[in-house]
This record gives sequence, C-alpha cells and structure tokens, in this order.
Amino acid sequence: MTVLTPSLETLVAEFGKLPGIGRKTALRMAMHVLGSGREPTLRLAEALRAVVERSRFCSVCGNLCEEDPCAICSNPRRDHGLICAVEQLSDLLALERSGEYRGVYHVLGGVLSPLDGVGPEDLRIEDLLRRIRGGEVKEVILATNATVEGDATALYLLRKLEDQDLRVSRLARGVPMGGNLDYVDQLTLVRALDGRERIR
Amino acid sequence: MTVLTPSLETLVAEFGKLPGIGRKTALRMAMHVLGSGREPTLRLAEALRAVVERSRFCSVCGNLCEEDPCAICSNPRRDHGLICAVEQLSDLLALERSGEYRGVYHVLGGVLSPLDGVGPEDLRIEDLLRRIRGGEVKEVILATNATVEGDATALYLLRKLEDQDLRVSRLARGVPMGGNLDYVDQLTLVRALDGRERIR
Repeated sequence: MTVLTPSLETLVAEFGKLPGIGRKTALRMAMHVLGSGREPTLRLAEALRAVVERSRFCSVCGNLCEEDPCAICSNPRRDHGLICAVEQLSDLLALERSGEYRGVYHVLGGVLSPLDGVGPEDLRIEDLLRRIRGGEVKEVILATNATVEGDATALYLLRKLEDQDLRVSRLARGVPMGGNLDYVDQLTLVRALDGRERIR
Repeated sequence: MTVLTPSLETLVAEFGKLPGIGRKTALRMAMHVLGSGREPTLRLAEALRAVVERSRFCSVCGNLCEEDPCAICSNPRRDHGLICAVEQLSDLLALERSGEYRGVYHVLGGVLSPLDGVGPEDLRIEDLLRRIRGGEVKEVILATNATVEGDATALYLLRKLEDQDLRVSRLARGVPMGGNLDYVDQLTLVRALDGRERIR
C-alpha cells in the first residue's frame, strides 16, 4: 500500500535506481527534496539535464568532455608522446586526482572478457593503434586494473604493439592485487606511476 | 584540483547536498547517471520537476497532496471524527504504513521549542482548533514524538482542548522513549495505536 502522492512515489522510485540507494534512503532523499523548496530542486533537475545535454566523449581519447577534443588532449603542456591506456573514465579521473601524471590518456571502454562476450572489437583498441601509428607516441602505459581481465587486456595490447617502435609499460605493483584503480589512495597511485615497470 | 567537466562537477555538488550523500557517493551517483544514458537521466530530472510542480499541502490537514483536499481527507471511508495530530509529514507516512489507522490527520508542522524560537503561532494549532470547533470531531490523538518537545506540545494542546467536549488520547508507550515515529517498526506502531491511553 503506497501512501505517497504519485509524483513523490515516482521520485522515490527514480532515486532508488541510483547505486547504493535503497528505498528508505530514496524516501529520505525525496522528503529532503520536498522540504528544500522549489529552487534547489530545480537546480538538481537542471544539473541532470545539463550533464545529458553537454556531455560528450573526446574523439581522441574517449575522456568525458563538453568540447571535443577534451581539456587534456587539447592541453599543449601535456606530454602527447605518453599515452596512458585505462579501462574506464573513473580510472582516468583517479589518475588525474593523483596530480602526478603529465601525459595523455586513452579510455578503452572496458576489458577483454570472453565470458561476458567482450572481445577486442568492443574496446577502443583500433583507435589506440591508429593514434600510435601517427608517430608522435613514445611510450604507452597499460594502466588496466590489476585483475585477471585487466592483465589479459594488457597482454593483448602488448602483442598488438609488438611491431611498433615504442616503450610499453605497466603500472608498478604498488596497486593492490585484485584492486580497482578508482578505490586506490593517491599516494599509492603516485608510487605506481613512478615505479612503472618497463615490459618491453 | 577538479578534473570533471563543469556540468558533471555541478551535478556532483548538487547530489552532495542530499542528506547522507558525501562527495565520493555523489561522484559515484553522477558517474552512474552519466553511464545510464539520456532517457533514465531525463526521467529523474522530470520526476524532480514533477514533485515541485504538483506537490501542495492539503488545506484541511497539511498532508502532502496533488489535489486539495488530500486523498485521506477526501476519503469517505475514513473516520472524520477521529483526528491524529502529528508533528511532521514523515510521521503521517509512518502511521499510514502501519495500515491500522482509519481516522484522519492533522500535521502540526513541528513541535513547540522555545530554544529554537518555535512558538504555538508557528504550528498549525489554530487550524486544528478550528476543525474541532466544527463539531464533527469525537477524539483527538496527540501523536507527537515521545520526546521532551513532543510531550510539551501534547500538553499544550491538551490545555487548549480543555473546554471542548471530546476524548483526547496519546499514543501508547509502545513507542520507545526518545524515539522518532519515522523509525519505529510497524508492529510497534500498531500496538501504540491499539493501546492508546485516554488522558481525559
């Protein structure tokens, strides 16, 4: 039996779809929205709309941006000869938060995972190879997560890069095994970047 | 140093204003929104707008509604001779969830709290007295929380009702002392309704 008004019930249901938000929390959030008044609520609605309308992905690296290419790819002070290939946008953000990395990125959009039906053609691997063939790139850091799939993807990329004249490295094993880049503390990320191991 | 796009940063900030949502959770929610695509995000934005546009308060009892009077006040199967006075909307919702109560409500909009500068004129007490003077009301349940302020408010209302010919009751002490109606389990609420103690 629902006792909420239809619009409030809808809002609770929508909040409940967010990660980690159960019905009780969704209801508390909806009641807060209701109590906070017109302007703050419309600001949140507008923020959601703005993200949808303005967000696009950088045609070069796959980073999130509002203007293509992204702020990193269009920054002349970044080292465009150094590409850090990451699984996801959240990994890129984690590395940027560490404040140490001065190169550019390539977001693969996932990892190879045959069980989930994810093959090389589902990742932005061909785009990466095209960037490398451009000639400017001196080193590629394969910064996929320290998981089985991440390692397998890095190995696959290493083989694909065999005939290219460039350094290829992997993040140092400062990253905890089985861990996810997004959850690693910044100091560990700095160490992992500094101590990256050349594998070719 | 922010590495997010302006619109995403705004969304994270707006999510962070919700109760119990820190920056890390707000970021995870924003990334989820980003990954969920256009339609689900606009649905959430629309749900927020709809709550703002459609929600109003019942002119009779102060309950949330989309059409005035609210679904409870306009329900002929509810006992309009029995009014349950609660502090807040969330208390009304908690009592409705118990599924036991068949009367109507009156949302006071708070409790007397001199230290916070809340006096009788800040609550919807005059509206309650007006409803009672209408003559249809046989009993008032003073269902303010079992806190010092809740008890004080109930006592104040009891005195205000002295010259009226009606029963006045308080929820049974099944409600834990110092507890908040919104957090009490439904069985306790049912017992508290059943065992309400007549105080006059």
